[in-house]
Amino acid sequence: MTVDLDTPETLVRRMAEAARAAVDRLAVAKTGTKNAALTGAAKIIRARQADILAANARDIAEAERQGLSSAMRDRLLLNPARVEAMAKGLEDVATLPDPVGQTIAEWTRPNGLKIARVRVPLGVIGVIYESRPNVTADAAALCLKSGNAVILRGGSESLHSSQAVYDCLLAGITAAGLPDAAVQLVPTRDRAAVGAMLKAAGLIDIIVPRGGKSLIERVIADSKIPVIKHLEGICHTYVDGEANLEMARKIVLNAKMRRTGVCGATETLLVDRRAIASHLKPIISDLIAAGCEVRGDETTRSIDREVKPATAADWDTEYLDAIIAVKVVDGVKGAIEHIRKHGSRHTDSIVTDDAAAAATFLNELDSAIVLHNASTQFADGGEFGMGAEIGISTDKLHARGPVGVEQLTSYKYVVRGTGQVRP
Amino acid sequence: MTVDLDTPETLVRRMAEAARAAVDRLAVAKTGTKNAALTGAAKIIRARQADILAANARDIAEAERQGLSSAMRDRLLLNPARVEAMAKGLEDVATLPDPVGQTIAEWTRPNGLKIARVRVPLGVIGVIYESRPNVTADAAALCLKSGNAVILRGGSESLHSSQAVYDCLLAGITAAGLPDAAVQLVPTRDRAAVGAMLKAAGLIDIIVPRGGKSLIERVIADSKIPVIKHLEGICHTYVDGEANLEMARKIVLNAKMRRTGVCGATETLLVDRRAIASHLKPIISDLIAAGCEVRGDETTRSIDREVKPATAADWDTEYLDAIIAVKVVDGVKGAIEHIRKHGSRHTDSIVTDDAAAAATFLNELDSAIVLHNASTQFADGGEFGMGAEIGISTDKLHARGPVGVEQLTSYKYVVRGTGQVRP
Repeated sequence: MTVDLDTPETLVRRMAEAARAAVDRLAVAKTGTKNAALTGAAKIIRARQADILAANARDIAEAERQGLSSAMRDRLLLNPARVEAMAKGLEDVATLPDPVGQTIAEWTRPNGLKIARVRVPLGVIGVIYESRPNVTADAAALCLKSGNAVILRGGSESLHSSQAVYDCLLAGITAAGLPDAAVQLVPTRDRAAVGAMLKAAGLIDIIVPRGGKSLIERVIADSKIPVIKHLEGICHTYVDGEANLEMARKIVLNAKMRRTGVCGATETLLVDRRAIASHLKPIISDLIAAGCEVRGDETTRSIDREVKPATAADWDTEYLDAIIAVKVVDGVKGAIEHIRKHGSRHTDSIVTDDAAAAATFLNELDSAIVLHNASTQFADGGEFGMGAEIGISTDKLHARGPVGVEQLTSYKYVVRGTGQVRP
Repeated sequence: MTVDLDTPETLVRRMAEAARAAVDRLAVAKTGTKNAALTGAAKIIRARQADILAANARDIAEAERQGLSSAMRDRLLLNPARVEAMAKGLEDVATLPDPVGQTIAEWTRPNGLKIARVRVPLGVIGVIYESRPNVTADAAALCLKSGNAVILRGGSESLHSSQAVYDCLLAGITAAGLPDAAVQLVPTRDRAAVGAMLKAAGLIDIIVPRGGKSLIERVIADSKIPVIKHLEGICHTYVDGEANLEMARKIVLNAKMRRTGVCGATETLLVDRRAIASHLKPIISDLIAAGCEVRGDETTRSIDREVKPATAADWDTEYLDAIIAVKVVDGVKGAIEHIRKHGSRHTDSIVTDDAAAAATFLNELDSAIVLHNASTQFADGGEFGMGAEIGISTDKLHARGPVGVEQLTSYKYVVRGTGQVRP
């Protein structure tokens, strides 16, 4: 009888067991050691730039043979600037405060027990992503800094690039004296490896998928392990009747058009009925002048003949493109009603000078991020001052909004007594 | 064609939809309103004590007919004192601070954006429990106080009792003007209702099972919804060579024998090789004198002839009984090694006067609760000052350790600007 040790299931299981065996050492790794691994890996990435670009050229050639779209090839492409950005990203994570060991809260009980809630790593994180090879470095850095072991499974089309980047990471990690299994890359294109990761409950503690909605939905459907995920960003900007006109114009244009492909881009503009005459027309003109397709309800169409008719589906669509749906609503209550019905509870903003309307909007909407007089495009861990992020969570359990190093931790209670027993 | 509206699946789905529809109102319910519902329900429970006891008598009679064990019948039994304890429990939760709306953290960005992380309810919580009817009141109170809608599914043997308690809760909730769907009880014994709850992803946000290991394992296996669970409490007390003898005796006796059926009870005693002569003998004598069966390794058996031999299985057993496994280890490092291998990462304690040994133990062990010079029986939300708890989580995601009202919340980011757009 022979056993094939190289099935994806066996391979992933062996990797997950190695990761699990490393968690206790990683949990007590010193900040300086983790930072040395990160900055060391950054140096090696710079030194091996030519190797990384050569590996990437193999992936790109294969992508061309397979006829991948130019958008996909662009996501896959590395160049000297992108390699440098990866190295810089590792150094940036090294400068972040170490979350492990931080005391989140502490108090003393009447019986004298001193209780502290202290951050600890989660354990083993599985990251499943698509074609961008830079995720290999970014995700590894965040997991390592937060004291977790990580198993990376990148897109099959970027395997050579990811492997080249991974080799640099591993060199940095071993030079710093951390266990090899701190960061592992699944070295196969076989899709069964993803299924094996999703079934490794007890070995992998959490799965973080990064990619399009179809990847996320597949992961949710198949995973036996909790998932921190970003599902959809149907974000709204509501321009209230009491909005400052110039501020509203500037915010809406930025919220929609700064970058249309990011999850915090506004997809639907809601305008207070009281602001039709004053605000709606100039805001729409700005958008059209910037090259945005505007799809509006009847009132909006009556304002500007270039506005196309919105259908029912528009209110539920994440365009990720230069398209915006526009609707007139009855004040802040009307905006809230629309957003509750059609939003994805990701990021929503109100523009108004009316403090009461702002308070109602911020209080009553249950979105991961609610803003007053600011662009929805601020939905980003870096913009929040959290350093790099592994993604933005649209879940409410464990982590919500930007997921940085703190969100990749759990906590334990440290209780210090002087001989107390329970009555 | 006829449609049976009363299948458990249809019933649970309708309840879950009603709960989902109530979450936005519950999330903004005022603290006073929620407290009025709780104290009102407490009054009604007291006023209807006779009805509740009559309903309980029906459950008990049925339990006797079915030949349920006396331990199970005791868990099921209500008496005036237990009814009063339920009412008092509701009033206690009313006195807890309202977690909803609390600002957990706030900071200002260089661009002037003010960012606050604010607690919000999770949404809809499904609680699946066994025979104790008091869980109906306790769980409902914690979920309501934290602004969540809850669907309760009690043990089939306690349905009459739970229904009588639930009627009081509902009367308190409606009198306070909160939506009926804030608290719902699944009114059927059909086990398919549990399966239907576990599949209601998108409607129910989190499942909290309360009961024995077999219930928990079934819920984990079947749930399509994240679960906060308590799996097992294989807790350790380690007596170091530098332990104060009297303190060690007092703590070990309390940790094992105060109540043997609670999850924080010590199941394994580890004793430093340096303390064999000084500590092991008196500690074992205390335990045996208190009626505890001691199962030891060879060294322990050589100390006291009443010690029975421990088998390999003993190190991995949660007795929940007056039994303890005892092993001699090589100092704090030996204790850590044993606990990592055999513990359930629930609660572990070190008794020592050596600050360095204590620091090593507290830092290197990844248990939900680690204690120094205190009894493991303090593993309890009330003892931590968190008020009532819905259970203790042995998970590391979202909530770890005691789960009180704070742990039944998520958070959102409230961002206040003055017209900022992202560069």
